[in-house]
Amino acid sequence: MTIHQFRPDHYHQTLGRHPAVLRIRPGDTVVTTTIDAGGNDMHGARVGERPNPQTGPFFIEGAEPGDTLVVHFDRLAPNRATGWARPLLAPNVVEPEVATALPWQEQQRAYVEWRIDVGAGTASLAEPEGRLGDFTLPLEPMLGCFGVAAPGGQAISTATSGPHGGNMDYRGFKEGATVYLPVFEPGALFCVGDGHALQGDGEMTGTGIETSFDVQFTVGLRKGGAPGWPRGENRDYIFAVGNARPLDQAAQHATSEMLRWLQADYGLSVREASLLIGYCGEYDLGNMYDPAYTMVCKIPRRALPR
Amino acid sequence: MTIHQFRPDHYHQTLGRHPAVLRIRPGDTVVTTTIDAGGNDMHGARVGERPNPQTGPFFIEGAEPGDTLVVHFDRLAPNRATGWARPLLAPNVVEPEVATALPWQEQQRAYVEWRIDVGAGTASLAEPEGRLGDFTLPLEPMLGCFGVAAPGGQAISTATSGPHGGNMDYRGFKEGATVYLPVFEPGALFCVGDGHALQGDGEMTGTGIETSFDVQFTVGLRKGGAPGWPRGENRDYIFAVGNARPLDQAAQHATSEMLRWLQADYGLSVREASLLIGYCGEYDLGNMYDPAYTMVCKIPRRALPR
Amino acid sequence: MTIHQFRPDHYHQTLGRHPAVLRIRPGDTVVTTTIDAGGNDMHGARVGERPNPQTGPFFIEGAEPGDTLVVHFDRLAPNRATGWARPLLAPNVVEPEVATALPWQEQQRAYVEWRIDVGAGTASLAEPEGRLGDFTLPLEPMLGCFGVAAPGGQAISTATSGPHGGNMDYRGFKEGATVYLPVFEPGALFCVGDGHALQGDGEMTGTGIETSFDVQFTVGLRKGGAPGWPRGENRDYIFAVGNARPLDQAAQHATSEMLRWLQADYGLSVREASLLIGYCGEYDLGNMYDPAYTMVCKIPRRALPR
Amino acid sequence: MTIHQFRPDHYHQTLGRHPAVLRIRPGDTVVTTTIDAGGNDMHGARVGERPNPQTGPFFIEGAEPGDTLVVHFDRLAPNRATGWARPLLAPNVVEPEVATALPWQEQQRAYVEWRIDVGAGTASLAEPEGRLGDFTLPLEPMLGCFGVAAPGGQAISTATSGPHGGNMDYRGFKEGATVYLPVFEPGALFCVGDGHALQGDGEMTGTGIETSFDVQFTVGLRKGGAPGWPRGENRDYIFAVGNARPLDQAAQHATSEMLRWLQADYGLSVREASLLIGYCGEYDLGNMYDPAYTMVCKIPRRALPR
Repeated sequence: MTIHQFRPDHYHQTLGRHPAVLRIRPGDTVVTTTIDAGGNDMHGARVGERPNPQTGPFFIEGAEPGDTLVVHFDRLAPNRATGWARPLLAPNVVEPEVATALPWQEQQRAYVEWRIDVGAGTASLAEPEGRLGDFTLPLEPMLGCFGVAAPGGQAISTATSGPHGGNMDYRGFKEGATVYLPVFEPGALFCVGDGHALQGDGEMTGTGIETSFDVQFTVGLRKGGAPGWPRGENRDYIFAVGNARPLDQAAQHATSEMLRWLQADYGLSVREASLLIGYCGEYDLGNMYDPAYTMVCKIPRRALPR
Repeated sequence: MTIHQFRPDHYHQTLGRHPAVLRIRPGDTVVTTTIDAGGNDMHGARVGERPNPQTGPFFIEGAEPGDTLVVHFDRLAPNRATGWARPLLAPNVVEPEVATALPWQEQQRAYVEWRIDVGAGTASLAEPEGRLGDFTLPLEPMLGCFGVAAPGGQAISTATSGPHGGNMDYRGFKEGATVYLPVFEPGALFCVGDGHALQGDGEMTGTGIETSFDVQFTVGLRKGGAPGWPRGENRDYIFAVGNARPLDQAAQHATSEMLRWLQADYGLSVREASLLIGYCGEYDLGNMYDPAYTMVCKIPRRALPR
Repeated sequence: MTIHQFRPDHYHQTLGRHPAVLRIRPGDTVVTTTIDAGGNDMHGARVGERPNPQTGPFFIEGAEPGDTLVVHFDRLAPNRATGWARPLLAPNVVEPEVATALPWQEQQRAYVEWRIDVGAGTASLAEPEGRLGDFTLPLEPMLGCFGVAAPGGQAISTATSGPHGGNMDYRGFKEGATVYLPVFEPGALFCVGDGHALQGDGEMTGTGIETSFDVQFTVGLRKGGAPGWPRGENRDYIFAVGNARPLDQAAQHATSEMLRWLQADYGLSVREASLLIGYCGEYDLGNMYDPAYTMVCKIPRRALPR
Repeated sequence: MTIHQFRPDHYHQTLGRHPAVLRIRPGDTVVTTTIDAGGNDMHGARVGERPNPQTGPFFIEGAEPGDTLVVHFDRLAPNRATGWARPLLAPNVVEPEVATALPWQEQQRAYVEWRIDVGAGTASLAEPEGRLGDFTLPLEPMLGCFGVAAPGGQAISTATSGPHGGNMDYRGFKEGATVYLPVFEPGALFCVGDGHALQGDGEMTGTGIETSFDVQFTVGLRKGGAPGWPRGENRDYIFAVGNARPLDQAAQHATSEMLRWLQADYGLSVREASLLIGYCGEYDLGNMYDPAYTMVCKIPRRALPR
């Protein structure tokens, strides 16, 4: 039950077999920082590279392929007063004919700056924008990209996602959430990065409000039982995450993973699980911008059999 | 501002140029009933045909192609004590290999009965089902299928959906919601049907809890301004609906329609609208079972510029 | 075995329950004409409306729902010396970021004229186009849109396609091909239109070379055995057609329909049919522009068991 | 212009920064062997691991990121008398309801053996299969998987594909074809493997006839001009390859890459290129089974401007 203070000095743009920066035990807590999606730290200094540079990997003692890594996000908070974001819908999220009318050729590299006020719990545009003025939204800090080393000796870009996690850009990965990830490599090799002060469903502009974070997480380990896709839970829901294109396939993975979960851990028949998913299941759109899109299948805890 | 009591004696399985059953004026209210998706009325008598038999069409005086029909759902309530539903996830909502393990060949025509208690505000399985027991969920009455006559002289099956509405199976079409539909034919020819006592997001088993309804709605008319896809609003959100396959395309329609709405009615630039959608947009999954899937883009009212 | 000379005087933009223009018997031949996708006849006179106005419907005596309509295309030939076509890739067939760079906003209504020389068997650009000069291609006349009345009392736009046929825009529907269509309405109500002097795979610009046609076809009827999707055959192949979005689903329909065909008519097990499709199956892209895309699964005749 | 005889003693299951087995110069030829998709060599000995173990990587002197690697397949030939293959359509290539009726749960690990007769140019089932008997097909040897080290320091599984090549399973990658690949790492790090004695379009059963190969290829190098996606050419066509899901996106990549090629190397305007693609473009389905599907856009050489 050690608390590790870890200060990163390098970052990764892939999730794979990188040398561990720290060895920790199940039950341990890590207090660390992440830099933003473009590589800028809490002082605005460029110390890492795009896309979504990761802090880690952390080697969890005892984690073997086939095990389940448990990660609880104890604390996720922006640690600087600014974030950046893209101001234009991505061409792939609108009708193709609408895409031809977007000012994309001119603005694809445009960014807007946001002021982040952790005390007030808000983010506001640094420069007023037309009728939106100094558009202000409530903070909802989350991690866009985290995961374990990918399977089969792969190193997968932190631009995308898969069964190992990665760039899922899902609003549900926030403080208080617990995540379950399959272990593919000894030690799991867990990494974190890509903090968003907030984002909309789907990350339709291709970014959240990208900023550096203070991150505290606590790990656990379950021998065996590796899920097929990332799972999570919070106070109100259990949820399963699918990452693929098109959204249909992402939803198929999320639904199938929830089905497997309900069968294996809650002892439900396929029919009982179907009734739960079919009549009280809820779905979230994680992202519809990254190379793999993300859909999430959620079941309210109150509906789960005891 | 007339209130029309309308008792249907026939139903339609397509949305097209059917003879109107009633002519009403903008501002008028209709109090009527719908039968369930399989054609059964409040007494359980089979009086209509699959799929999703519609009450109507109602001819709205003054509605011309290019106009916008406004429909407010004043009251939607099950009018009998039972509903039926499919108990098995549909093959298209799970991973293809998982589909091969579903007991679909045996159970594709299986149904479960639910007891609907409008007073208690709940639906419960009529027969206990394994570990779910007498699985009880809160009622959330909604209309799965409604719409206007399809464009271009088409008659489109009530199994599917499009710009004209149809079988969208979206939980947001419930009491208190206002819907905006494009008018394609003189009088709009509005129809309603397919009440669900409740459903999960996506209608992953292929049905909600299907039952007959008491329905009260009030119509309005805006000259011109026909939306490209159905729009709606409720107390907290404005929303735009896309119906297509795959979900990606449904989401593209929903996003593009919201963009058009924000530009035309709220005077936003494409960049301002992008910021709204990108940083406070929310997406719902309507259905992922019908021939056209449904995705919904929502903007919270509190974020809209005044 | 009558040969009917039929001169159309009106055209349809939907495939549905329209009054028959002619009643014919299985074995009969029809010699008629079609107008181009924009409604222009052999003299260039605008006599019909977009999209893809149809000649017909022809009522086939004895055809009942569940039967199989057989249509052999005896002769398909342009009957005027010009055709028109769109000169720009459609936004949906390129990467979304590439779409933003297309000159679509300026050229979406642009057309190029082609000179059709039936004697020489060629089509050439009427005006030379840059480095392509007077770009000349071999004629390959085909029908983009034909079909029977849609199921369930629907009237489906000739802009799209389905199990009933419709706007499939597949190069394989040319002279010498035989087509098998499911009968949904008494008399089948067969229509033809949308001749292309030629098109590329996928109809990536949204048109073929659109022109008016002389058409001769001979019908047959098989009681029962209605296919799930259009089927066809020519000298070298049997083929099955799927119409849907995305292409994946179109290919699933085509593959499944071929599987059903091989099982039902050739007596193959699912494993034998799989070996045929898997090791000598060929796939064509019909169109990737219309509301429903088209994929075709073909099996070479030489590989079929006798 | 050296000819290198290279005998592999280890194989890779990812395309990434592996130590080179041989350094060669542009113009050099390599004569080597590949083992089958399951790791079996010409003697049937298991010497490598699934999936699609690769021979290489070969380091091409002078190749730098941004360059174009040119590979000509001089000779591709099975080097043993047997191959194996899956006998059942994959669940993802049929309609979801059809998938539920496939004997997948029983046969997902079933294989059939084929006898390969290079002299006769045929492959035949080793055991007669029902009405297919000793089903015999013409050999059409091709490489299912080859490519360069993936971008961004990634190591990508040879189960899938991307801009770097990989498991494209396209019939067009056969003897006589020339391939153009983007260089992402110094030396390009080219690998080859996964020989198919033949396959159908789409690889609908999930395999070709998998066997070990004798491979001879000659490399070239073009400074700069790295394509966005693999390109190729043969006697009759130039072609561009897209790898993604769904097929729509794969086709968008292929079309966009062809557009870029025609603009950059043939000096065509977007409109001229559109006319070529739209009116004489042909599309092939590579695979519809692997994690990324493959579509190919081809232009006949005879239609290209000089």
